[in-house]
Amino acid sequence: MTEALLKHPRLISLEGGEGAGKTSALIAIRDLLQSRGHEVVLTREPGGTPLAERIRELLLSPQEETLAPETELLLMFASRAQHVREVIRPALQRGAFVVSDRFTDSSYAYQADGRGLDRALVEELERKVVRLKPGLTLLLDLDVREGRARANGRDLWPDRIESEQDDFFERVREGFRKRASAEPERFRVIDASQSPVQVGAAVSAAVVRWLENAA
Amino acid sequence: MTEALLKHPRLISLEGGEGAGKTSALIAIRDLLQSRGHEVVLTREPGGTPLAERIRELLLSPQEETLAPETELLLMFASRAQHVREVIRPALQRGAFVVSDRFTDSSYAYQADGRGLDRALVEELERKVVRLKPGLTLLLDLDVREGRARANGRDLWPDRIESEQDDFFERVREGFRKRASAEPERFRVIDASQSPVQVGAAVSAAVVRWLENAA
Repeated sequence: MTEALLKHPRLISLEGGEGAGKTSALIAIRDLLQSRGHEVVLTREPGGTPLAERIRELLLSPQEETLAPETELLLMFASRAQHVREVIRPALQRGAFVVSDRFTDSSYAYQADGRGLDRALVEELERKVVRLKPGLTLLLDLDVREGRARANGRDLWPDRIESEQDDFFERVREGFRKRASAEPERFRVIDASQSPVQVGAAVSAAVVRWLENAA
Repeated sequence: MTEALLKHPRLISLEGGEGAGKTSALIAIRDLLQSRGHEVVLTREPGGTPLAERIRELLLSPQEETLAPETELLLMFASRAQHVREVIRPALQRGAFVVSDRFTDSSYAYQADGRGLDRALVEELERKVVRLKPGLTLLLDLDVREGRARANGRDLWPDRIESEQDDFFERVREGFRKRASAEPERFRVIDASQSPVQVGAAVSAAVVRWLENAA
């Protein structure tokens, strides 16, 4: 197990809170890349493989038993390890683009900033287990109350994490924004208060510029 | 999250390979401690809580999908984090003894020595997530072939880990023995080639001596 953290140019992640329009953005990126002749693998976290989806169920379905924050963190990375090994690496190796709805930045924002877990442990897990970083990360940034209002209109049964309080999501949003400021070459922050069509256009424009710079 | 790794005098773990007689030994320890008026919580890893048992299923049931070694390690520690939080700490806090069929030493032996994963990552997880070490660990040491012959006589459907090859179990056994040599004050190595009754007696005698020294 080496410790190099490789930033891969064909791995693109989408990050952001609830109701920010990640799904529409994901589809916009897929259509754009396909129209340029690329193979695109759309995937999501937690999940992305049958086993990782079973881990996702443990993470998101409300339990009789309180999930310890450390358990949550380790289940997230267990699912991610499987996802990287089974889906992401093979796709990158055959030349495909991988577009993931959430990736490791979510663990920094939700488990370190949101839950207050040790950031050094998240870094250690990223370096030793994931060993891969997106070349481009699109952060769909949105006011917490607006995002939750949108998501609530859609979800009759909020999952375990969606059931957290506003201050938790404020810490998560702040966490994402700080990461974006710290790595401006990797992050593009998209104003997600716009309409889904505008968000899709902004995301596509960011990907086009990024592809042109990378070429 | 502090990093102190507390060795707790009422936490006792049983370690060893397949077919070494851990279950009989567990019962012998429980009976001994109860006869002296102690509350005893018998538990096991992976597992020990409803959620941790669901993680155990993911770990042990043979999958269509190959479990990445990193996924296995993180699922083990996710289950352990939950077990410590929900079962072990509350029991110790109310003064009970906890006797666990396997604990963190198994992750060193199976995932680091057996699978070749980074020992430093296991140490980090022990220090930051588990933060608790048994006061006494009984290692039931047995020749790999003999242990597997015993276990095969019993298990019609070996689980995913039991289905590994002998050289894997040789590394696991060697890993346990090295840990025992490195921490002689915590470990007692029991010759598990003896009959179950003899193993039970040796285990009980080790616990009695240890209680007397601790008193």
